[in-house]
Amino acid sequence: GRTLRMTLAYDGTNYCGWQVQPNGVALQAGVEEGLQNFTGAKTRVVASGRTDAGVHALGQVISFTTASTAPCRGFLQGLPVHLPDDVVVRAVEEAPAGFNARYDAKRKWYRYVIHNSRIRNPFLRNYTVWQKSRLDDQAMHAAVSQLVGTHDFRCFEKEYPNKLTSVRTIMDARVYRSSCWPMWQSAHTWGQPTTESGAADGPFVIFEVMADGFLYNMVRAIVGTLTDIGRGRQPIDYLRTVIQSLDRAAAGMTAVPEGLYLVNVDYGDTDAAT
Amino acid sequence: GRTLRMTLAYDGTNYCGWQVQPNGVALQAGVEEGLQNFTGAKTRVVASGRTDAGVHALGQVISFTTASTAPCRGFLQGLPVHLPDDVVVRAVEEAPAGFNARYDAKRKWYRYVIHNSRIRNPFLRNYTVWQKSRLDDQAMHAAVSQLVGTHDFRCFEKEYPNKLTSVRTIMDARVYRSSCWPMWQSAHTWGQPTTESGAADGPFVIFEVMADGFLYNMVRAIVGTLTDIGRGRQPIDYLRTVIQSLDRAAAGMTAVPEGLYLVNVDYGDTDAAT
Repeated sequence: GRTLRMTLAYDGTNYCGWQVQPNGVALQAGVEEGLQNFTGAKTRVVASGRTDAGVHALGQVISFTTASTAPCRGFLQGLPVHLPDDVVVRAVEEAPAGFNARYDAKRKWYRYVIHNSRIRNPFLRNYTVWQKSRLDDQAMHAAVSQLVGTHDFRCFEKEYPNKLTSVRTIMDARVYRSSCWPMWQSAHTWGQPTTESGAADGPFVIFEVMADGFLYNMVRAIVGTLTDIGRGRQPIDYLRTVIQSLDRAAAGMTAVPEGLYLVNVDYGDTDAAT
Repeated sequence: GRTLRMTLAYDGTNYCGWQVQPNGVALQAGVEEGLQNFTGAKTRVVASGRTDAGVHALGQVISFTTASTAPCRGFLQGLPVHLPDDVVVRAVEEAPAGFNARYDAKRKWYRYVIHNSRIRNPFLRNYTVWQKSRLDDQAMHAAVSQLVGTHDFRCFEKEYPNKLTSVRTIMDARVYRSSCWPMWQSAHTWGQPTTESGAADGPFVIFEVMADGFLYNMVRAIVGTLTDIGRGRQPIDYLRTVIQSLDRAAAGMTAVPEGLYLVNVDYGDTDAAT
């Protein structure tokens, strides 16, 4: 069979996460069932990585082999009717034989959206974390530059040690305030940069980070720590202190999953974001 | 007891509408139960108007009398824990004795949001209607000026005659394109005007209308007709033709409820939008 690469967006609200779990409905199961109904054959897919219960994706990438002779365009147009309505197929491409969405991933982008407003918004309850007290987004933006580089990030890892290594390289990290929920923009239209004057306003405080890989719960642990900085409970250089401690207890709380989005996965090809 | 006026925002997705129905959960029931739990006494509320199943509100106004001596601030802070998490209390004010949110309403604002994009967005499935083919928002904006004024709008009324009169006065109507889902902005920050050059871009086509009252399903029937104009299936002056026909069959389809928002209700007091 040939190998295909598919980009998915999904609302993770009603799922136990990407991967099949003892309880709850898994996104992977819904996608595999849809592919089986579309192609007529049982299909196993590999994702760039798992997303937890409640976590969303704008650009999750999966790979699978299939005996189907349907063109990519056929998948794009015909598969959606076999998928739940909270899963959207954004792209389908032919991939080289042996392409594996998990092992071939070079870089990933995550976004975390905080709704920073005095009044709660009912439409955002599954898509953001609500933070009532005003966050200092400028301080948060200054702080995240300390994440950039190659570090042992075990301080942000849940259940260390559960990986061969907790060293990762963060290539880019930023925090900005926006008046618009960036629900759709992928890394190709990576959010507007914080202006020099800090003029950007609005109720959304957005953290975006790009790395060669992430540890389990890493982004959410960073966001918890970053919120402490934004609320003035910790100094701007606190992230450096936490990283150097190598101690999960030094970092902040793990932020709730609702605000987290897997934005994009880059496989080092020309289609990738720059 | 005293009379209170309360402004609510809600996500109508999981409800059969505002009003109690044979099947499904009504917003009114959830709010009355919350008030009973907060005040300790059975409370009956009156809303500015019903919203249908799936229709949302940013500024629904309700009135009720209560023997509670809790200050307005007490309701604002204490009531939310007794409400479902898709209902938000935006404001609580003392009202004159006899104030009735339904009969005293002077003007209402509605908004309808169309997601006009080649690719469906999973996060918007309950909050917009998805329209794949490109809409001519400039033509739609030009068309809606024909709605403004006092007309017999029975052409947009479901099950005519079900009102004493189907004459209403539309004071303002506009269509504009936006890059941002205007989920929160009330009529006080009524959406950005369409620029002269039509430079506004983005995937959202937004219809906003203000009138002294609306007939049943009126906004959704207008949107269906307007979509025909935006797709080039009907000429720009078609709304005038439909209004003059006095015939529901001449108008377009009734648009789905998901895109509809009750934005604001004005009672002619100083707090009102202008």
